[in-house]
Amino acid sequence: MTLPQALAFDVFGTVVDWRTGIARQSAGFLAEVGLGARDPAAFADAWRAQYLAAMAGMRASGRAFVPLDVLHREMLETALRDWGIDPAACKETLLAEWTRAWHRLDPWPDAVEGLTRLKVRFPIVTLSNGNVALLMNMARRAGLPWDAILGAEVSGVYKPDPRAYLATAELLQMEPGALCLVAAHHSDLAAARASGLLAAHVARPHEYGGAPAPDAHHRQAWDWSATSLTDLADQLGC
Amino acid sequence: MTLPQALAFDVFGTVVDWRTGIARQSAGFLAEVGLGARDPAAFADAWRAQYLAAMAGMRASGRAFVPLDVLHREMLETALRDWGIDPAACKETLLAEWTRAWHRLDPWPDAVEGLTRLKVRFPIVTLSNGNVALLMNMARRAGLPWDAILGAEVSGVYKPDPRAYLATAELLQMEPGALCLVAAHHSDLAAARASGLLAAHVARPHEYGGAPAPDAHHRQAWDWSATSLTDLADQLGC
Repeated sequence: MTLPQALAFDVFGTVVDWRTGIARQSAGFLAEVGLGARDPAAFADAWRAQYLAAMAGMRASGRAFVPLDVLHREMLETALRDWGIDPAACKETLLAEWTRAWHRLDPWPDAVEGLTRLKVRFPIVTLSNGNVALLMNMARRAGLPWDAILGAEVSGVYKPDPRAYLATAELLQMEPGALCLVAAHHSDLAAARASGLLAAHVARPHEYGGAPAPDAHHRQAWDWSATSLTDLADQLGC
Repeated sequence: MTLPQALAFDVFGTVVDWRTGIARQSAGFLAEVGLGARDPAAFADAWRAQYLAAMAGMRASGRAFVPLDVLHREMLETALRDWGIDPAACKETLLAEWTRAWHRLDPWPDAVEGLTRLKVRFPIVTLSNGNVALLMNMARRAGLPWDAILGAEVSGVYKPDPRAYLATAELLQMEPGALCLVAAHHSDLAAARASGLLAAHVARPHEYGGAPAPDAHHRQAWDWSATSLTDLADQLGC
């Protein structure tokens, strides 16, 4: 296999553990709205569960691009309503800080070491649906050493739109086939491959708290399959 | 003075010494086109001298945005013609590598230490007319620890268009007045201030090899005035 010229990373689930971080932070917020007895991990799942629908809704409606923070806020309000809370009755500062929980997620234990090793040999960039401020705040807090923060907000379209992958390769002045997407999600990798990118899978069996991933049916034989980012660094000779 | 929430940096001349780097690399290229006896620093000046005209030309013509690498190539061809060389008679690989000399510039001696210290307290991003690949390649080679690479290619307009400054603040989710441009150029700082940004000047008396800067008439009393990026770090308590 020819080595890539650069690595582009999915972030939520691949580099950071969104479920544990959102659950931990939601515990306090849920208490503030009178739901302190409920399971915060279930709330994290309920919040994230609207993600695919939100992406599809953006595409189907032809709505002008808005940053993921805006969608996270809308998804939060929907999740609250589903749990019997009227978001209009909540303090604005509470909803704003809750939404920004996505800026404060912890990396998987192997992520910082793996990225640091991979960065010696390859440019490492984000190719995430997260917006620039979100990813930058997360990186500063978690110590993620990105060379550049690219993805949906910079390209103006959300994955899995092919333009999100192709625009990232173009910004890096590379042919799509020289860029490798690194992701825990088979659906993301399938879309990247359909656009001509290389594809490296990283297994994150705990992303959904041990529950099965929703995109297992997109599984293919990927160019690389790793159990962690340090394992990927081993495989790529870093 | 209220401290900024983030620092956005001009790059060419402010963080890296373009003149010395372009002259050093041009020496070999000039020899290849039969101009080995000419002064490579004068060629660097001739190449860069077209920069403001290229920016103005982009604006005046309504030409769709193209990355700075494309303008650098056009400016190189003009400079060669001015020096009596027909670029159409040059090898494509020579012209391409010569254009990429802008990716391989060295930082001013204080830059890496200054940025590293400033980054502890403030997010540090580029707000340069350089394109993403150029700035990322430069940063990897020179060790510039940017939190994010922003600027013309991400915002779709070149400085000093106000939208270049305002789009950067918006991507960082900040009011313009919370973002500080750090630049060696009074014209750049004046445009940033006109858009509501804070402004920090860094003196680079050797940018033009000791010749006077072309924008001295834009000088104002800036929010901070520093002799180096380490001096700016001192002034900002880093």
